[in-house]
Amino acid sequence: MTPPHLLDEAIALAPQEEGVWQGRTHADWANMIGPYGGITAAQALTGILLHPRRLGDPVALTVNFAAALADGEFTVHARPARTNRSTQHWIVEVRQQEQAVVTATAVTALRRPTWGEQEARMPTVPRPGDVPRSRGKRVEWLKRYDTRFIEGHIPGEWEGQDAGHSRTRLWVRDDPERALDFASLTAISDVFFPRLWLRRAKFTPVGTVSMTIYYHADAAQLAATGSGYLLAQAQGQGFRNGYLDQAAQLWNEAGELIVTTHQIMYYKE
Amino acid sequence: MTPPHLLDEAIALAPQEEGVWQGRTHADWANMIGPYGGITAAQALTGILLHPRRLGDPVALTVNFAAALADGEFTVHARPARTNRSTQHWIVEVRQQEQAVVTATAVTALRRPTWGEQEARMPTVPRPGDVPRSRGKRVEWLKRYDTRFIEGHIPGEWEGQDAGHSRTRLWVRDDPERALDFASLTAISDVFFPRLWLRRAKFTPVGTVSMTIYYHADAAQLAATGSGYLLAQAQGQGFRNGYLDQAAQLWNEAGELIVTTHQIMYYKE
Repeated sequence: MTPPHLLDEAIALAPQEEGVWQGRTHADWANMIGPYGGITAAQALTGILLHPRRLGDPVALTVNFAAALADGEFTVHARPARTNRSTQHWIVEVRQQEQAVVTATAVTALRRPTWGEQEARMPTVPRPGDVPRSRGKRVEWLKRYDTRFIEGHIPGEWEGQDAGHSRTRLWVRDDPERALDFASLTAISDVFFPRLWLRRAKFTPVGTVSMTIYYHADAAQLAATGSGYLLAQAQGQGFRNGYLDQAAQLWNEAGELIVTTHQIMYYKE
Repeated sequence: MTPPHLLDEAIALAPQEEGVWQGRTHADWANMIGPYGGITAAQALTGILLHPRRLGDPVALTVNFAAALADGEFTVHARPARTNRSTQHWIVEVRQQEQAVVTATAVTALRRPTWGEQEARMPTVPRPGDVPRSRGKRVEWLKRYDTRFIEGHIPGEWEGQDAGHSRTRLWVRDDPERALDFASLTAISDVFFPRLWLRRAKFTPVGTVSMTIYYHADAAQLAATGSGYLLAQAQGQGFRNGYLDQAAQLWNEAGELIVTTHQIMYYKE
């Protein structure tokens, strides 16, 4: 029997009462302090994906990181606040010791074919096979991904020099390979290291406060993407008085826009 | 006695029990169907701004439009889900007839000076005084703003031609003038007409599903901005199977980044 993928292990939730699940942090997804935010976001979304009253697939998700998760158990509380004919609005909390550690809202929807256009085009970059794979990863969660940086790698030396911009482009996929679904796509959407480290090249404490994901791909497009690489691009916009934001896009190898995602991070100095 | 500004009339909330306020939709902020989303967002935020347990100023706000607001009364329910030393996480619902019409989350924080950098620079554009003011506005809420389009105005004729891009740039401020604060800034952040109309030049039913605002400006910077114009820029990224997103930035006349904001909209065909 094949052991479950480490992503599936991490997002496994045990049902309690309706809309309440119990999960556990997973050592293989640890960040420097607490778990990788992307896996926490995927766990919060899974509370919706498993919900018996769910309508449709994710269109938007906002996850707010209210406190560092402690290692161990947590509960996910997912509530459909409003169900319409083709859309549904969710409020989610992840709790430890009766306190919210994550708040989230989401929209799920039944999608149907319409006119379409993709204005955010994938940049011209080398193919994944032509880009060297990153080695020597220092945090555990990053070892869960095959990453191939094209531009804006994490600084090798912390020289405090301004790189002039904070744009990163990399190819990324689950390692070992796993067919893309909404949970894994949510986790991957947080793959970028802090833009501050690139822009300032100074190792400053930093952490995501809020992350929003817009899912442009539907289930059929995810199935077609399979276990291929995603091109992930992020760039900072403003850095001011302890908060910075980034705007990011993810495309599949065919150049289709899969996700646009944004986050705001706290930084210390 | 000077009558209150129409924005202040619209966001006026009457306290009920702690964390619950009663408001009313305002005819001067009407959109084609229901109220202007920006004023609804400002009303939801006001539930936080008025809350006696609030810590700090807004850093992030996500507002999900779960249903069209009916004309008349609504209640705003704002709850601090987690209060830390310098940040606070909020869950908000706006309800009519005991049903959620809006869900929202927000982060407020005490900010302090740090290193800073502004990577999203204001584009070089004519000054507000050199750009003609928009006339002949067809929806009520738009008359609450002095708008001066530089690029990407709403199509004068609906010819169904692809404009090739969906970027809009305009100068905007409250009309009559009003010193900028977090409520008015929230309302202005939704000022863009749907990117679909620009890109496709076809009048298609469309409505915002979820909007996120990151506040880069603190209270002192808003005070310095005063009643000056904001340069507002928005561009669509993906349009697919009934949903499109836009990424937007607002700068003050001094070129300081005030807000970055994103939204995902539903469209019909």
